[in-house]
Amino acid sequence: MNPIVALDPRVEGLGVSAALAARRRSGELAAAGATVFRLGLGQSPFPVPAPVVVALRAAAAEKDYPPPGGLPELREQVAEFHRRRHGLAFAADDVVIGPGSKELMFLLQLCWAGDVLVPTPSWASSLPQGRLAGRRVVRLPPGGSRELMTTPEAVAAACAADPWRPRLLFLNSPSNPTGLVYDERELAALAQVCRDHGVVVLSDEIYADLGFALPHRSIASHYPEGTIVTSGLSKWCGAGGWRLGTMAFPATSRDLRHAMEAGASELFSSTAAPIQRAAIAAFRGSDEVEAYLADVRRILAGMMFWAFTELSGIGLEVPEPRAAFYLFPSLAPLGDALARRDIVTDVDLVRWLRIETGIVALPGSAFGMPPEALRVRLALVDFDGARALVAAGQEPISAGFVARHLTQVHKAIARLTAWCTIQRGRS
Amino acid sequence: MNPIVALDPRVEGLGVSAALAARRRSGELAAAGATVFRLGLGQSPFPVPAPVVVALRAAAAEKDYPPPGGLPELREQVAEFHRRRHGLAFAADDVVIGPGSKELMFLLQLCWAGDVLVPTPSWASSLPQGRLAGRRVVRLPPGGSRELMTTPEAVAAACAADPWRPRLLFLNSPSNPTGLVYDERELAALAQVCRDHGVVVLSDEIYADLGFALPHRSIASHYPEGTIVTSGLSKWCGAGGWRLGTMAFPATSRDLRHAMEAGASELFSSTAAPIQRAAIAAFRGSDEVEAYLADVRRILAGMMFWAFTELSGIGLEVPEPRAAFYLFPSLAPLGDALARRDIVTDVDLVRWLRIETGIVALPGSAFGMPPEALRVRLALVDFDGARALVAAGQEPISAGFVARHLTQVHKAIARLTAWCTIQRGRS
Repeated sequence: MNPIVALDPRVEGLGVSAALAARRRSGELAAAGATVFRLGLGQSPFPVPAPVVVALRAAAAEKDYPPPGGLPELREQVAEFHRRRHGLAFAADDVVIGPGSKELMFLLQLCWAGDVLVPTPSWASSLPQGRLAGRRVVRLPPGGSRELMTTPEAVAAACAADPWRPRLLFLNSPSNPTGLVYDERELAALAQVCRDHGVVVLSDEIYADLGFALPHRSIASHYPEGTIVTSGLSKWCGAGGWRLGTMAFPATSRDLRHAMEAGASELFSSTAAPIQRAAIAAFRGSDEVEAYLADVRRILAGMMFWAFTELSGIGLEVPEPRAAFYLFPSLAPLGDALARRDIVTDVDLVRWLRIETGIVALPGSAFGMPPEALRVRLALVDFDGARALVAAGQEPISAGFVARHLTQVHKAIARLTAWCTIQRGRS
Repeated sequence: MNPIVALDPRVEGLGVSAALAARRRSGELAAAGATVFRLGLGQSPFPVPAPVVVALRAAAAEKDYPPPGGLPELREQVAEFHRRRHGLAFAADDVVIGPGSKELMFLLQLCWAGDVLVPTPSWASSLPQGRLAGRRVVRLPPGGSRELMTTPEAVAAACAADPWRPRLLFLNSPSNPTGLVYDERELAALAQVCRDHGVVVLSDEIYADLGFALPHRSIASHYPEGTIVTSGLSKWCGAGGWRLGTMAFPATSRDLRHAMEAGASELFSSTAAPIQRAAIAAFRGSDEVEAYLADVRRILAGMMFWAFTELSGIGLEVPEPRAAFYLFPSLAPLGDALARRDIVTDVDLVRWLRIETGIVALPGSAFGMPPEALRVRLALVDFDGARALVAAGQEPISAGFVARHLTQVHKAIARLTAWCTIQRGRS
């Protein structure tokens, strides 16, 4: 008899995550000799800061299984990092380390008996993760600033029926895919509605340290008893490929944190020990790490301001980015022209952009937007971050800097604006 | 309102995995000044081979997200490793890399729609993983050699009802906790019954390269179309704390392998890039790595022979270990004497052993044995592997070697035999 294999309905038809699939496609196109602008995967272009690399080298012989929740010294440094940088009070014991905050978010949903509330748009893995963990995922309709955030009204509406049901609200500020940031007033209002309805917040703050205007604001300062905060090395520390994430729990959620540690011990045992050692150096910080971060932010802020200006200058609807490296323009203002070419969804749009400009981007629908909103997520990361850091030590960040040192990004934005102008000319 | 938190029934009451919890307990006892013999967690006491550590150092600045299934060069080397060392033919494309084979086994059960057949005894995480993945886990009754293996009859009986149901049989040879190995004839018979019933085999071969008598035999040579093989760096390469596992699929299971890669991209994205680079050096091998492995096996074989002789010499029922570092004695021959002290389960037994001898061990019931079988798993790993390797280059492995260089193991076994003799004297 042939081996009988059957896939669980949760994975039937599941593809590789949109961002990682886009990276593969970019690689295939480049290998085939095509001009490619890799604006798909949101990977930091900057190198891991030197003292952190040195710490990994020094820990290369470390081979013991760490505790499931992470090395105590690392948990301590993460708690201290949240205190120092974000003004949040977590105890070291309430921090759990995992092989990426993605894995921790999955495990949280496995442990959590209740619904998951996901704003629109949101991180592309929110829905697949909820499905894999067997959760009911409730999409909150977009609203708030530029119709791309969530609102207290949306949260309240989602809680109206079955008020005692446990609910977990995913917030991500600064946001992937929009680059937007909730302000203090918005955070306070969201905190209030969550408190009123007993909603727990999973606040994904992985981009906190790439904000253009510090200090970072967290909903946890308004709702400490009900907010779980995630962070990690992938974005501010340039170490996406190292796979280390953190999750900090309110002192009132010890049972949940214990369940996470038990689940961790059965899912992944612990996070790679040498990587954890290096992470201690990263979260502890140093003058060198601070100087690195300051230059990273200067470069990103300048580049994003330039690109935002270019795209809004040709009439696209673009949220003004406040952090990191994502732009989330809508090409709906060109909708009539595009419709005449049968480009009516963001998937069509992304496909034609790739063919006609070489830009690999992700459709807004991968983040939960309606396909006909014609949103595109551009990750402006196709440049040599190490070279850019050297240059940033010698010159101001200007449009000239972008053209000279962030050449692929400069070309990609120029091609996109030219392409949009051509579409318009056709109408 | 207070935040409403509810735990999923799958994690309610779930503790940290038995082995990791035992390690924590050992540490607490040692910190309190107690004499402790750490025979709980099955962590290789040997260092990571030098060329592999060098490779990790060299890759310390590597920061890009690897593909979800692993770096192509690593998948190539793992396929080649299985070919060279185990005589198995897997294509590089059919290998998936994960942060530990534990995580890959969990993900496999998440992707798999069907029952999981688990022999008795088996790895302690088999049941918790099945429960977390939402699978029906069917325990096969013990049988075969020393009543501690599974048999074709047990597999056939489990498949009698509902013959078209997909079933996944977990095999682990060499075995944790018993140290036993299925021989060629047993593997052929199991292969046949699995083929007859369309059962897919998950063959956990993490201890393959720590066998005392090479070459390793895999059920995959008898049943290539239906066997998935896992391996990793944790045991033969001494790198448990690095968290890197491998899973190789039959060419006929491409759909399942694709689902695993998609699931991987949503659960953990990929495995730490610097660790993957170092793993390439490990799986590729070298004269230095071969010499390391040869000495590791010499030490383990000598130590295990000595310890087995000691324990069977006092009348305990002990399976003769053929690989790695586990002994799985039954103290049932002392059952009457122990019963007079109210020691009637393996949990009682492990507790009193810890109190009266300082030995931290795991109860057989953590591996699915009946508590009254009074089985104990001893992981003979409480020694300095680096020092032992140096000594092994200079002297033969004898009882004297064990006494001089594996001192804690020697003392622990001496204490255990003395304790057993005292119990007997009391009866």
